Amino acid sequence: MEELNRIAESEAESIERSQQEEIDGFNDPESNDLHQPLLKRNRTLSSSPLAIVGTKVSHIESLDYEINENDLFKHDWRSRSKVQVLQYILMKWLLAFLVGLLTGGIATLINLAVENIAGYKLLAVVKYIDEERYIMGFLVMAGANFFLTLVAALLCVFFAPTAAGPGIPEIKAYLNGIDTPDMFGATTLIVKIIGSIGAVSAGLDLGKEGPLVHIGSCIASLLGQGGPDNYQVKWRWLRYFNNDRDRRDLITCGSSSGVCAAFRAPVGGVLFALEEVATWWRSALLWRTFFSTAVVVVVLRAAIETCKSGYCGLFGHGGLIMFDVSGVEVTYHAADLIPVAVIGVLGGLLGSLYNYTLHKVLKVYNVINKNGKMHKLLLALSVSIFTSVCLYGLPFLAQCRPCDPSLLDSSCPSTGREGNFKQFNCPKGHYNDLATLLLTTNDDAVRNIFSINTASEFNIVSLVIFFALYCVLGLITFGIAVPSGLFLPIILMGSAYGRMLGLAMAPYTKIDQGLYAVLGAASLMAGSMRMTVSLCVIFLELTNNLLLLPITMLVLLISKTVGDCFNPSIYEIILELKGLPFLDANPEPWMRNITVGELADVKPAVVTLSGVERVGRIVEVLKNTTHNGFPVVDSGITINPPLGSSPNGANELHGLILRAHLILALKKKWFLPEPRRTEDWEVWKEFTSIDLAERGTTIQEVTVTKAEMAMYIDLHPLTNMTPYTVVESMSVAKALVLFRQVGLRHMLILPKYQAAGVFPVVGILTRQDLIAHNILDVFPHLSSSKGKKGH
Amino acid sequence: MEELNRIAESEAESIERSQQEEIDGFNDPESNDLHQPLLKRNRTLSSSPLAIVGTKVSHIESLDYEINENDLFKHDWRSRSKVQVLQYILMKWLLAFLVGLLTGGIATLINLAVENIAGYKLLAVVKYIDEERYIMGFLVMAGANFFLTLVAALLCVFFAPTAAGPGIPEIKAYLNGIDTPDMFGATTLIVKIIGSIGAVSAGLDLGKEGPLVHIGSCIASLLGQGGPDNYQVKWRWLRYFNNDRDRRDLITCGSSSGVCAAFRAPVGGVLFALEEVATWWRSALLWRTFFSTAVVVVVLRAAIETCKSGYCGLFGHGGLIMFDVSGVEVTYHAADLIPVAVIGVLGGLLGSLYNYTLHKVLKVYNVINKNGKMHKLLLALSVSIFTSVCLYGLPFLAQCRPCDPSLLDSSCPSTGREGNFKQFNCPKGHYNDLATLLLTTNDDAVRNIFSINTASEFNIVSLVIFFALYCVLGLITFGIAVPSGLFLPIILMGSAYGRMLGLAMAPYTKIDQGLYAVLGAASLMAGSMRMTVSLCVIFLELTNNLLLLPITMLVLLISKTVGDCFNPSIYEIILELKGLPFLDANPEPWMRNITVGELADVKPAVVTLSGVERVGRIVEVLKNTTHNGFPVVDSGITINPPLGSSPNGANELHGLILRAHLILALKKKWFLPEPRRTEDWEVWKEFTSIDLAERGTTIQEVTVTKAEMAMYIDLHPLTNMTPYTVVESMSVAKALVLFRQVGLRHMLILPKYQAAGVFPVVGILTRQDLIAHNILDVFPHLSSSKGKKGH
Repeated sequence: MEELNRIAESEAESIERSQQEEIDGFNDPESNDLHQPLLKRNRTLSSSPLAIVGTKVSHIESLDYEINENDLFKHDWRSRSKVQVLQYILMKWLLAFLVGLLTGGIATLINLAVENIAGYKLLAVVKYIDEERYIMGFLVMAGANFFLTLVAALLCVFFAPTAAGPGIPEIKAYLNGIDTPDMFGATTLIVKIIGSIGAVSAGLDLGKEGPLVHIGSCIASLLGQGGPDNYQVKWRWLRYFNNDRDRRDLITCGSSSGVCAAFRAPVGGVLFALEEVATWWRSALLWRTFFSTAVVVVVLRAAIETCKSGYCGLFGHGGLIMFDVSGVEVTYHAADLIPVAVIGVLGGLLGSLYNYTLHKVLKVYNVINKNGKMHKLLLALSVSIFTSVCLYGLPFLAQCRPCDPSLLDSSCPSTGREGNFKQFNCPKGHYNDLATLLLTTNDDAVRNIFSINTASEFNIVSLVIFFALYCVLGLITFGIAVPSGLFLPIILMGSAYGRMLGLAMAPYTKIDQGLYAVLGAASLMAGSMRMTVSLCVIFLELTNNLLLLPITMLVLLISKTVGDCFNPSIYEIILELKGLPFLDANPEPWMRNITVGELADVKPAVVTLSGVERVGRIVEVLKNTTHNGFPVVDSGITINPPLGSSPNGANELHGLILRAHLILALKKKWFLPEPRRTEDWEVWKEFTSIDLAERGTTIQEVTVTKAEMAMYIDLHPLTNMTPYTVVESMSVAKALVLFRQVGLRHMLILPKYQAAGVFPVVGILTRQDLIAHNILDVFPHLSSSKGKKGH
Repeated sequence: MEELNRIAESEAESIERSQQEEIDGFNDPESNDLHQPLLKRNRTLSSSPLAIVGTKVSHIESLDYEINENDLFKHDWRSRSKVQVLQYILMKWLLAFLVGLLTGGIATLINLAVENIAGYKLLAVVKYIDEERYIMGFLVMAGANFFLTLVAALLCVFFAPTAAGPGIPEIKAYLNGIDTPDMFGATTLIVKIIGSIGAVSAGLDLGKEGPLVHIGSCIASLLGQGGPDNYQVKWRWLRYFNNDRDRRDLITCGSSSGVCAAFRAPVGGVLFALEEVATWWRSALLWRTFFSTAVVVVVLRAAIETCKSGYCGLFGHGGLIMFDVSGVEVTYHAADLIPVAVIGVLGGLLGSLYNYTLHKVLKVYNVINKNGKMHKLLLALSVSIFTSVCLYGLPFLAQCRPCDPSLLDSSCPSTGREGNFKQFNCPKGHYNDLATLLLTTNDDAVRNIFSINTASEFNIVSLVIFFALYCVLGLITFGIAVPSGLFLPIILMGSAYGRMLGLAMAPYTKIDQGLYAVLGAASLMAGSMRMTVSLCVIFLELTNNLLLLPITMLVLLISKTVGDCFNPSIYEIILELKGLPFLDANPEPWMRNITVGELADVKPAVVTLSGVERVGRIVEVLKNTTHNGFPVVDSGITINPPLGSSPNGANELHGLILRAHLILALKKKWFLPEPRRTEDWEVWKEFTSIDLAERGTTIQEVTVTKAEMAMYIDLHPLTNMTPYTVVESMSVAKALVLFRQVGLRHMLILPKYQAAGVFPVVGILTRQDLIAHNILDVFPHLSSSKGKKGH
């Protein structure tokens, strides 16, 4: 929150020039070193309001989920008719429907584009290989990949830096209450779609799952606000959705639709949003996201049916289940649990190792990316060339193997872009198993390595090369400035070592090697992403084999447990790296040892306003602070205290007023010549609830004359009379629980003493004040007590 | 909460005798009319602390989920070593493992017992029918059913009334924070197991799903507390689990294990607990319940494998998937969506109608059951006889139909207890389709009606009879005093009309009739229980047909939407009927129009204690009130107020002390001869955290001499210094959100004024104060404003 972080501005007005430079520095965030503010130790609780969104360093704010119960809200709420409530409910469902429809449609579009672009590319390459013009084949492939990567990277670097990466960490942060600027705009959406098509078609080691989640969320956000920022439809039915709460719900729908569209897994999508992405969850939301994903599945199914007629070019194979392994009978006995446990442990170890290494790589990439746009571009293109060289060159290392006679002529060897036994450089009747895995799209590679009843298809050497290659690619590809998903790289890596283990265990077990690959993929996912139920359902929906469920569950549980011993999940690592102030569900144990009063002590004194305040003072406060909320206190009023002594001179905490509402009152010039309380009708005729929902005007845009400065504003009707509060003796641990569970932006601290002259507000806490490392920065001894006690 | 409801006691000490009678009246709750207190309108917020648990009227209390941060807690927490923390984590997982293991084991036991008892019964009946000794056949069947019902009902009526019914509403209430006495004891567990075996074997129209959920929860609770109430293992590793928070988590594990064991649906079990049963959910819990259900599935699978060798008597058929319909190919097109939508709408209508009618029936049953134990028993036995008559008699109405020649000799007609084409009274080569559905266990009936590729098996007349019969049975069976689940009756009803519709639509659609039955069952479930995602997954795991997923989702969504137009879900209706004060996630809209201050005004003045209090006063307060928490206020102390005026005479809100801790101090005779603050060591040597976790001692059990009455107790170290608070101007709506989200038992109301002489606590709110109908009772105008505004 900026009120913490731009303290310098409000503290020293005299050095306005240097300050201005600082603000300029903020406005060109690329030049800013993200983690520097954390290094200086001081006794003032403060932290950086910057974070990396996509590949762009941005200012972050908090979202307002709290219902602002002021007079106007109550009036508006009371005057809402039955019809308007019905409108609202109807719109909610309509929007959920549209989110599903559009996400499904765009997912189909992306699939179509990828399959066709990658397909024709591969066909051209295969043609040259058939003619033994290997160098020409390489040039075509590398050239096409280079060009596709260039398109994706150019768009991401120059038009929408927020579209780079998977987007899931940023969405997770958004749903936790952190506004991630430019994250859900129309430009981002378009760049993400085109960039994702380019990057996936270019054969880079990345998936379209993360990007689809982001696309779903963008669609949801755009629908909710009625279109792109500058061309919004001001439809009055949409006005109820102009608030952070409803937008949060919509974006949750969007993200589950995205997962659903990526994996054709409706239940998995809902659970993914629930387990990994969303912070707040209600059963009504469960139901609405479920509706969205149902719509997505219907759209996908309809598209698949349509494409079966052949209208979709090279797209058109496969049903609703992506990697169907239901054709094999699963029999396993107690002894088979040993290799299953081994897969689980391996998945946990490799997953946490992957997290660790990726963290290091991303740090290096951040340094490179910070050097400017050309560096970002060059990095992406280098990775593309490296990938092309490996994908094309490595299959030449593999031995040609003769086809199984029973398969000869029917499916082995295949010369097209699909098929399980690629001929590549081999003579007739032989196939190159490494080409089967490398010279194809990532989806087909997964399909091939998951393929069942093909026990002797892959050579162990080929699998080792495949695994090693994808380990390297998986680490170097993720951080480049193109839309990229993490799921598919991890599935590819995991399936490789799963299949290797299957090959090694073949003499001792009856489990099919394709299933080993599935289990390997599941284990690495759990080892890196640390999800359980949602992964289980996604794998069930991907592979359509319910009998696999018990062992999948065991593998997932073992991998997650092992992984958790070493480091947090990959998403948490990325959130931390990006500097997003994510609020965890559980407070740190040492937070019991510090009270909110102690936190308030190390913050600058709280800035309060009077119930009827001078315009001049409001302007001054708004200009000199960056706070977003101000407590409103009425001083020296007359009350009848219950115990009857000294009835005068009491202070009353009236509530909390938002910066946006103060600016609104200034903009509307709702001034009073003398200090007095206003009547209800005076307010109602001036303000509507739509006005109150407006955000974005800054104090600089408002001009107030000198005469107006001496006038007054009655803040009472605009003040949220029911802010959540804690007493100063409250421990930070419990305050954090309240803050996070209720979804707050500001939390007022009240004094624990009740006496004349005690000011009714001790301080105000925001998200940044409750972030563990910010507190530890000021109170380092807490951390050491934590280290000593070990929990 | 009793502090509200036994207000009479504290108000008028003079009429102690009449009061005593009232307490006696409470102690014999069977004589108490549950809903009477709601009829009298008064200006004091109060309500009944009674609710029906099982079939027993009990006193209910709230649970303490809040962490009691007093000096002792902090000391204990700081002194916990790393080893102890590891112990705690290890125990958590061990307990989750044991919950899964035992639930799986007991579920297997119940299955074995039911299949064998019901199997031998049916074999005997079939034998008499073969010999055309129809009356003898009836007598055997009715007699066996009568006896089995008698056993179940006798146990439930005389030993554990809380074991009657499904138990799910009570568990739901428990996880919402309402203590339901005797619900999770050893007696209840044993009665539930035997009673469930008896009731299901007796052919009553009820399932073992609800009871299994209850059994899982009992196991979890018993494990967590180290055994039955009077024979607890005082193992020190278990001491950390002697609190309501950890017990809540364990019981959540238990309930999902129960669903998993009932349907062999591990993911469905987790989701059921998440969507329907649990109120608070954390992702750590998702993971642990998932572990429990994984263990259950492994146990079930091992048992099924073992039974295949033939050691289990008549049990031994079927795999892990109960009603497998994966054998049929699902093809459907846009036109097929019309019958699917019809099923959905029908499901919603019938489901809500079922809820409505069942509500009426349960009300009548409550009146009957209140008349005493004999009435309960007679009711159960009458239902049993009626069921036997119908199940045995109705098949005679059905026409014998010739077997399909292709099936002849192989599976039609069958004469055993299983099989899809029962011969019953028919000649050779013919079968009686109604006997196939009625003269079998409920599970087999579902299997038969779900059976695929049997388009012409059932006659429409038979299906109508079947449907009508199960509508009647489903309504009259549920409320009797035996363990009963709701799932299976609803599945039976729903599958019947689904299949009927399938028969009617047969010329126009390609969907298999068995799938129609599945969809019908799903629709009625959604129409009555109003779940979506969990039902979808449960049906997926029951039927193993992933291709059915999109239409199942549509059916569920339509049914729930239609049903929600008419009434709440069946569980909510039962909760309301039982008088359990369940806190909903969403506040009523009219709650924005009332502040917590107004609620405090209509309650008796809050009873506070001083930081160092006289023993006599504490005893007096404990004896004359039933409150469970008391604010501790230090008056007239000296502080240095920030603004420097009148430093003396301040009041400080120190925190909240629990009744249990006051009684503990009295019991330990931790008295001071003079009023003074104690030192830390004085406290630590006297109290341990284990002492603080103790509950259940009443003030009557503590004797204090007259001399001791004049002594003092320092309450500071025992006081929870960080209670959650709200300012009196807070709206009830937002207070409710805080109360429910954070999981509170007491919420302190602070004054909004800050002045000398203002008392620092205005009031205290508990669960009962926030229940909508209790508030409406005192402020009826709020309800009318709600009615007028329509939401």
